[in-house]
Amino acid sequence: MQCVSRLLRANSPRLCRPSTPPFSYPTKPARCFSATPTHCKFVVPKRKQQVTMPSDMTTYKGKPFDRASLESVMKRRLFYTPAFDIYGGVSGLYDYGPPGTALTNNIVDVWRKHFVLKENMLEVDTTMLTPHEVLKTSGHVDKFADWMCKDPKTGEIFRADHLVEEVLEARLKGNKEARGEKVEAEEDDPKKKKKKVKNIAVVKLDDALVTEYEETLAKIDNYNGEELGLLMKKYDIKNPATNGELQPPVAFNLMFQTTIGPSSNMPGYLRPETAQGQFLNFAKLLEFNQQQMPFASASIGKSFRNEISPRAGLLRVREFLMAEIEHFVDPEGGKKHPRFEDVADVELELLDRDVQLSGKTTIKTTKIGEAVKSGMVDNETLGYFLARIQQFLLQIGADPKKIRFRQHMANEMAHYAADCWDAELLTSYGWIECVGCADRSAYDLTVHMKKTGAPLVVREPRKEPLNVEEWVCDIEKKKFGPKFKKDGKTVENAIEALTQDLREKLSLDLEKDGKIVIDVPGVGDGKVEVPQELIKIEKRTRVEHVREYTPNVIEPSFGIGRIVYALCEHTYWTRENDDARGVLSFPPTVAPTKALIVPLSSHADFKPFVRTLGDKLQEAGVSTRVDDSGASIGKRYSRNDELGTPLGITIDFQSVKDNTFTLRDRDSTEQVRAGLDEIVAAIVSLVNGKEQWSDVAARLPKFEGQEVEE
Amino acid sequence: MQCVSRLLRANSPRLCRPSTPPFSYPTKPARCFSATPTHCKFVVPKRKQQVTMPSDMTTYKGKPFDRASLESVMKRRLFYTPAFDIYGGVSGLYDYGPPGTALTNNIVDVWRKHFVLKENMLEVDTTMLTPHEVLKTSGHVDKFADWMCKDPKTGEIFRADHLVEEVLEARLKGNKEARGEKVEAEEDDPKKKKKKVKNIAVVKLDDALVTEYEETLAKIDNYNGEELGLLMKKYDIKNPATNGELQPPVAFNLMFQTTIGPSSNMPGYLRPETAQGQFLNFAKLLEFNQQQMPFASASIGKSFRNEISPRAGLLRVREFLMAEIEHFVDPEGGKKHPRFEDVADVELELLDRDVQLSGKTTIKTTKIGEAVKSGMVDNETLGYFLARIQQFLLQIGADPKKIRFRQHMANEMAHYAADCWDAELLTSYGWIECVGCADRSAYDLTVHMKKTGAPLVVREPRKEPLNVEEWVCDIEKKKFGPKFKKDGKTVENAIEALTQDLREKLSLDLEKDGKIVIDVPGVGDGKVEVPQELIKIEKRTRVEHVREYTPNVIEPSFGIGRIVYALCEHTYWTRENDDARGVLSFPPTVAPTKALIVPLSSHADFKPFVRTLGDKLQEAGVSTRVDDSGASIGKRYSRNDELGTPLGITIDFQSVKDNTFTLRDRDSTEQVRAGLDEIVAAIVSLVNGKEQWSDVAARLPKFEGQEVEE
Repeated sequence: MQCVSRLLRANSPRLCRPSTPPFSYPTKPARCFSATPTHCKFVVPKRKQQVTMPSDMTTYKGKPFDRASLESVMKRRLFYTPAFDIYGGVSGLYDYGPPGTALTNNIVDVWRKHFVLKENMLEVDTTMLTPHEVLKTSGHVDKFADWMCKDPKTGEIFRADHLVEEVLEARLKGNKEARGEKVEAEEDDPKKKKKKVKNIAVVKLDDALVTEYEETLAKIDNYNGEELGLLMKKYDIKNPATNGELQPPVAFNLMFQTTIGPSSNMPGYLRPETAQGQFLNFAKLLEFNQQQMPFASASIGKSFRNEISPRAGLLRVREFLMAEIEHFVDPEGGKKHPRFEDVADVELELLDRDVQLSGKTTIKTTKIGEAVKSGMVDNETLGYFLARIQQFLLQIGADPKKIRFRQHMANEMAHYAADCWDAELLTSYGWIECVGCADRSAYDLTVHMKKTGAPLVVREPRKEPLNVEEWVCDIEKKKFGPKFKKDGKTVENAIEALTQDLREKLSLDLEKDGKIVIDVPGVGDGKVEVPQELIKIEKRTRVEHVREYTPNVIEPSFGIGRIVYALCEHTYWTRENDDARGVLSFPPTVAPTKALIVPLSSHADFKPFVRTLGDKLQEAGVSTRVDDSGASIGKRYSRNDELGTPLGITIDFQSVKDNTFTLRDRDSTEQVRAGLDEIVAAIVSLVNGKEQWSDVAARLPKFEGQEVEE
Repeated sequence: MQCVSRLLRANSPRLCRPSTPPFSYPTKPARCFSATPTHCKFVVPKRKQQVTMPSDMTTYKGKPFDRASLESVMKRRLFYTPAFDIYGGVSGLYDYGPPGTALTNNIVDVWRKHFVLKENMLEVDTTMLTPHEVLKTSGHVDKFADWMCKDPKTGEIFRADHLVEEVLEARLKGNKEARGEKVEAEEDDPKKKKKKVKNIAVVKLDDALVTEYEETLAKIDNYNGEELGLLMKKYDIKNPATNGELQPPVAFNLMFQTTIGPSSNMPGYLRPETAQGQFLNFAKLLEFNQQQMPFASASIGKSFRNEISPRAGLLRVREFLMAEIEHFVDPEGGKKHPRFEDVADVELELLDRDVQLSGKTTIKTTKIGEAVKSGMVDNETLGYFLARIQQFLLQIGADPKKIRFRQHMANEMAHYAADCWDAELLTSYGWIECVGCADRSAYDLTVHMKKTGAPLVVREPRKEPLNVEEWVCDIEKKKFGPKFKKDGKTVENAIEALTQDLREKLSLDLEKDGKIVIDVPGVGDGKVEVPQELIKIEKRTRVEHVREYTPNVIEPSFGIGRIVYALCEHTYWTRENDDARGVLSFPPTVAPTKALIVPLSSHADFKPFVRTLGDKLQEAGVSTRVDDSGASIGKRYSRNDELGTPLGITIDFQSVKDNTFTLRDRDSTEQVRAGLDEIVAAIVSLVNGKEQWSDVAARLPKFEGQEVEE
């Protein structure tokens, strides 16, 4: 399933696809899930480079990774399922079944301990329903959109960039075939049926056109609606199924709209991120934190994005769980972090901006302390969170070889952002952004304060009073009225809004000309002359005892659903001699169920033991399941290997005699045998991460009775 | 704040208000939050009786309860805050701040352990976005509505039943005043300003009219839109503010509507309950459970209700957290529960249907085993959950004197429901339904199966084959076409749909008359004659090896936000000698923060102790906060009493010398003093519920150094 487009662009690394999926399935998974104005959605990202081809993907045991096999396990074992399946389903909406829900809950639990509790963050739970005005101010109403075009005949709607991409890629493929070059067979992807370009015409293209197509594809994320429309005209791109003419691209806002209350005068949206609810409460949170800075708020909750045509399974959905931190920090003093020293030696795989600009994808393994020192990572607070994010990903079981941090290019970030790094996890869809870590500067607090007048600022007494030299405009108010009449107040406000630089310049005008001319939109021709009788401009010194500032925000933003999916890819493998026996090697901490209790049969003699074991483990907070079905022991364990259950306890006739049990390790299938209390203690110790299996195997007697295969 | 309407209706208990709030604030909090077709929303509930007047409310320490004081604490300490406050707020939407979020999370955690883990329920996480068709089938599109009427001049919208209620109550009050009877002063309720009827005309009413008003008020929940419109005409009810004419009531659906995807052809709603997502996945969950019955699914998540004009703070909101269980059970065999014996002796305060019908409100303290035996509670499974619900409420700290279970009256339940009980918690708003526990029968699975054809059934091999005697209709298909022509299939279907009883009756007709006449809507005049040449009806015996049935559903449905609020009322009190010093006595398990670390000052000597204590407790999973502000120790403890923090550790100069610390109990303010490890061990033991404070106080040396008051 090697990617044609990548091969075509092999000589031109900067034009490489970001995280190239199999050819039949062109997605842009690297687009951030957080979709905040900080990054990607409000600015046009450059395409990113890839490091590893999905076709090179191996399981952590070294065998080739087979996505179809994992997906089959995840669906069969009800990790997830299309929502409203019996009603035909709705694309982009998935339900999590018991193992998926437990896995997600456990990951959220680790997240909360690792971030919220460990760092005393202020966790809040804000509403999803959000009135129009808030998201208008944040910029989402105007800019949180994709381009779509409609076939007026069939009513079909296409996402414009995806359509251009698919059609051009199909033509390039047809060209290759026509030239007799090798074209990779399309993989047996169940989603293939959703592909719009079904029959690829084998037509040879001019060399020049091939280059043009390739260049267009490399820049596909950079086009706006008008440009996409021009491309569609230029390359004669129509509805691939019917060849019908399409309407020009129009912006489609990705927020779900609704109305709050019975009248239609309060339009609202489902939040596209949890961040805004945190910003709006900033002043109250600062008060709650007893005015101490820095501090962080955090929120775990669902957000929504009305994708035009969602694909890529759990990676691109319309309703998703986010965990977001907003760390508020003083912009002065280099954004130091008090605990940075704790992580300074943590090594990260960094793909920085300069390397990407040079057309390379070389990862630099760097201590975060050094990365901050060299300026590659902008500041300590950002660096601190990058290290903490990696620690979190490792703790839940991500494969260290499949984690990297990619810095955003200048044109991927909003103008106000200082720096932004994504934690990307390597999957069969390519490198996927799973955590965004951005410095949003003071943008959000500033716009909301400007709009509402609420003081979203920090006020702190200065240790030493500050002498502030500034240009002050004194207005002769009494003469203002008679001179400007009804426009008096407007002119006054315009003077008040003058910048320091302008005031300095105007003071010279005043001295030279005896008057100043200022811009006052809406009054006369927009220019207003103010004579020196009405105004005085001079430099004065003011003593400031209180410092007031708008904090900057460092935002680590986690897409939990993407992390859950990537984690399943990272931990999935199949038994050495049997590809049909899949195993999900979740660490015990996040595994949906910790221990399976397996009585040899449903014989009544075993029942009291099942109950005692279950009760003892439950008391210790260990989640268990009992499988007393008639299936063979081997079959029952296989099922639970697929569910990622790390431990299994067998109750056999020997147990009835001497109250001993076997304990089985999922990954090695090794077994030990011991008495009830020892077995329970070992499980608790393994689940709490106090011991590894090797420790347990070393101190408890090995059990050699073979695992009964089905 | 005694309630006028209650006094007026004192002689007529059946007409009593359900959970009467202060007169100025007439809400109907007893309306269930789950708003499922099972109860209240789809049927018109009778007004419920109240037991205790809000004015009698006392804290669990016995002093009068003061809601304003609690609300002030909850807002000041950021348990919750109006959402979008800096934008002016949106009624019915609240954000939870750090203590509210932590309290909610901890309650959810207890819930998950108590129900999901303990009983091996299958927890799922299904989407909130729900397509129209699903909620059309469930009945919500047609019936999940309130009546509203609009003032065409001002654009104001009123909830019709609330308006009629408020106006009539105001007139009754005016009448009392005119008659010189005592009228309770309206309490100083901040929400009073929202009241529509501001100036109450002091007008004497005829005795007959007073009776009429009272009767109308008593039945206010029972009127449909048309009836409410007639009442408004009859009693000349207009916009109370402007006296403007109102339009007749129209139904307003309470679901938030949106559109899924870019075209407008997929209307959808935000779910009004989590239940439907569980029903739709029934077949997959049964498969996951290896076909074993009974089993339960569970779901914790937000649901939405677009209230016309939400009031009553956290009790009536537009976005709320629910925790719902759907327990699927075989309808045959009396709905036994395998663990019923474990709870049979649990005593509950039951207010049953018969007592309510007799106009009384006598609570029967009854063992659930006896209640099921006597038939008061319909079946073991329902009874089992009632007991388990009470255990949960007690575990999180609800006041046992303020819990009761009220059975729904026949006219409160949907026609298909077998039984329904609400767990009500007594608050200053009256008895509030916080948990609904309904037997939804097979309704939901049946309608979805009928609509989609998906087999939402259980199939199980019969232990012994069953001989089924049944009346079979054999049709002479060849003759059917020539006889009925295009209507052949319709007539055939009508015959197939005949019930067993009808078939038996028709077999006699056939014998007697040589023909049958059946109803076939749409064919001829709706009656069709089928002669005996075309049909044979006879009784036959069929051997059935597999039993197929639609399970019944017992649904315990928890409104977490209501529980959180009621819990705050139940645990709130003020210090003996200082009403300004509020305390929230949450049990350690659910308290937002478990321990406060208080260094005497911010002196550098104390810092290593703060860190060591914090790290040790964190390692043990105990959430802590440090308060090293300059405030007095007493002030710092007071703040944390309001936050419900059960334990406080003081670090003083003695600590620096000998590594001992004082540990303070929030409720008694007693202190003990011991070394680091002993203090940590005591805290862990208290937080995990292994010990009570009295145990700790008995074994560790008491510390007599007084608490420094501010």
